[in-house]
Amino acid sequence: MLDEKGISKAVIARLPRYYRYLGELIDNKVERISSNELSDLMKVTASQIRQDLNNFGGFGQQGYGYNVRYLYSEIGRILGLDQTHNMIIIGAGHLGQALANYVKFEKRGFRIIGIFDIDPNLKGHTVREVKIQMLSELPDFLKNHKVDMATLTIPKNSAREVADMLVANGVKAIWNFAHIDLNLVLPKDVIVENVHLSESLMCLSYNLTHARREHKDC
Amino acid sequence: MLDEKGISKAVIARLPRYYRYLGELIDNKVERISSNELSDLMKVTASQIRQDLNNFGGFGQQGYGYNVRYLYSEIGRILGLDQTHNMIIIGAGHLGQALANYVKFEKRGFRIIGIFDIDPNLKGHTVREVKIQMLSELPDFLKNHKVDMATLTIPKNSAREVADMLVANGVKAIWNFAHIDLNLVLPKDVIVENVHLSESLMCLSYNLTHARREHKDC
Repeated sequence: MLDEKGISKAVIARLPRYYRYLGELIDNKVERISSNELSDLMKVTASQIRQDLNNFGGFGQQGYGYNVRYLYSEIGRILGLDQTHNMIIIGAGHLGQALANYVKFEKRGFRIIGIFDIDPNLKGHTVREVKIQMLSELPDFLKNHKVDMATLTIPKNSAREVADMLVANGVKAIWNFAHIDLNLVLPKDVIVENVHLSESLMCLSYNLTHARREHKDC
Repeated sequence: MLDEKGISKAVIARLPRYYRYLGELIDNKVERISSNELSDLMKVTASQIRQDLNNFGGFGQQGYGYNVRYLYSEIGRILGLDQTHNMIIIGAGHLGQALANYVKFEKRGFRIIGIFDIDPNLKGHTVREVKIQMLSELPDFLKNHKVDMATLTIPKNSAREVADMLVANGVKAIWNFAHIDLNLVLPKDVIVENVHLSESLMCLSYNLTHARREHKDC
């Protein structure tokens, strides 16, 4: 077992990117790679790579480099991708359906077991064999199923209420696309990952606007 | 005019969040706010708020606080939201349509003027009055329209080729949802904002996995 204590947030945030590059190396039948080669590929310094990975005990061998498949599976394990996470999606609009349709999530252990909406026209439709249910059916569903994560692709106005109901029924992790910082309003033991797409678009806008004035900073 | 030189990336990345909270204050008819009140709301320290805003010359008055509407419009201007950005979307799947349907983007000056896909079944369909065109029509479209930004909601495998074509035709900013770091492969003067949804989901998974072991770090 590796010691994962006290790892900084910045290091953890970089792990999914290592995982992605290592997955591509596996697809390309690369079996081992040095920190210098990985550095060229990912455009981060080799020393940063070594430092990042040393946080988890280090996976490389002097003169050999990293075993790609081993490193991939260890980082996957650290990220919790070796486990199955039962996920539900609240909001079966385009964004909710886009996420439900993304096959790769399932490959990584995120298993969509329920999709909910308030639009009666969607009732009974299926997305990848998962039936869309009405939001009113959610409390019962939560009582009868183990739900690890809920994805919220609903408008900001209803997000707080739905999140409170999820939490009251034992859901501990929320992937939140609504434009509200749910982490600030939910109990501290609930894990929230906010994705604010409009803020990402504003960053692009900032950079474009300021590039024209020869600034590039966001 | 405010001096915006040398602003750190971290400060800029926080601006869209200020903008969102100020917009909500306006909706709630709040006319002025102190840094302490804003601090309570946003859960960042008042001193951080003052420091962040001082980068742009400072907008507050001792004993008065900030004029909400003025600060909102100034931050909007800094983010480039006072301008209209013509945007196209490449990939009219669920994610592309979700973004195209998001009315708020239009309100903030992001005007969708074209949607492109390779699926002939989508040809001629419209999303919010914008006709879906075939990708083969894109080069001509780019020659005849001023396109400021392109949103890529297409698979990784075709993203590089499409991005190269966009850049060859003068597009300078890409909002990239494909799982490839386009910023590493495109010319330096092209602005790329990557949104890697699966990496965000992995962060959630990390935190959930480690919360169970009483770590919470991502």
